[in-house]
Amino acid sequence: MSDTESIARDARPGSSGPAPVVWFTGLSGAGKSTLASSVAARLRDLGLRVEELDGDRIRELLPGTGYTPMDRDAHIRRVGFLASLLAKHGVWVVVSLISPYRASRGFVRGLCPRFVEVHVSTPLEECERRDPKGLYARARSGQIRNFTGIDDPYEVPLAPEIAIDTRSVGVGEATLRIVRCIGSVAGQSLS
Amino acid sequence: MSDTESIARDARPGSSGPAPVVWFTGLSGAGKSTLASSVAARLRDLGLRVEELDGDRIRELLPGTGYTPMDRDAHIRRVGFLASLLAKHGVWVVVSLISPYRASRGFVRGLCPRFVEVHVSTPLEECERRDPKGLYARARSGQIRNFTGIDDPYEVPLAPEIAIDTRSVGVGEATLRIVRCIGSVAGQSLS
Repeated sequence: MSDTESIARDARPGSSGPAPVVWFTGLSGAGKSTLASSVAARLRDLGLRVEELDGDRIRELLPGTGYTPMDRDAHIRRVGFLASLLAKHGVWVVVSLISPYRASRGFVRGLCPRFVEVHVSTPLEECERRDPKGLYARARSGQIRNFTGIDDPYEVPLAPEIAIDTRSVGVGEATLRIVRCIGSVAGQSLS
Repeated sequence: MSDTESIARDARPGSSGPAPVVWFTGLSGAGKSTLASSVAARLRDLGLRVEELDGDRIRELLPGTGYTPMDRDAHIRRVGFLASLLAKHGVWVVVSLISPYRASRGFVRGLCPRFVEVHVSTPLEECERRDPKGLYARARSGQIRNFTGIDDPYEVPLAPEIAIDTRSVGVGEATLRIVRCIGSVAGQSLS
């Protein structure tokens, strides 16, 4: 395929083939966005071309996506398709999205040759204790429906590239571990 | 914005800022895909990093998009958002999509600093005469609903960067004209 050749030609020295897609999945309040931003900043510091895709912000930009299982599945697939196209052209993509379903994440993995699934595994009790946006309280009282962990399932990743529980690992240490993991998937040292 | 700086740094010699998004709009059978492929091939020959997005093929990849006006609007916006992100990272994007509504195209134009709207203006009678996929016949007989030009409107662009009527202009000549137009929007000579 001539596309593949042109990517290889265009890639930065030291890299070859499509860039990695780093996919943060986990419950609301688990710490995905914080870690994703930190990892993206570190990759930028290394001189890489980086795009951060935050599931909530993309939702605002793209109309017509609800919160039923089918809507959520479609949203995850669309974000994954977007990420895979950017990666194909050498952009390192960092995605932060609850993405609760295994099948949807599996679809995305199939699109991305260098997929790094980061399970932010902070447990429900801790996420609910933090409740930074007050969403769990509203879900518990029935004001919000189809809320992941409350009345919609979160399907734990069975074989993520890395898992981070933010109760026991700080942002700095987590960032180091994740970046090292990305490097091993990308086949290059990122230190 | 540090993103903009990194794009400028990453861009190829001779270019600066985001890449153009070349958006082919027009009726089914007007000749959009043929022209888009020809233009994309020419841009690749010039050594540029190019992505072709064909509306129909993207639809197959992305579930949950129907043909109601709201679904179509959402689909156009999503493809536009995808194109704008690729362009931001220096990828020249060529989109082929009926995109019948002015408001949807206007939304996309707002996302893309270098937008080249190519109206493939081949009239309905000619598209229907060609009917390469037999879709007009099925729409006329009521087997397909919400078909652009038959029972769903096509809102003609009021100020496209260029218009091509494929009755009177061949693929080679049209490609030359469109590439010249892209060059003027991109601020660089593409000959």
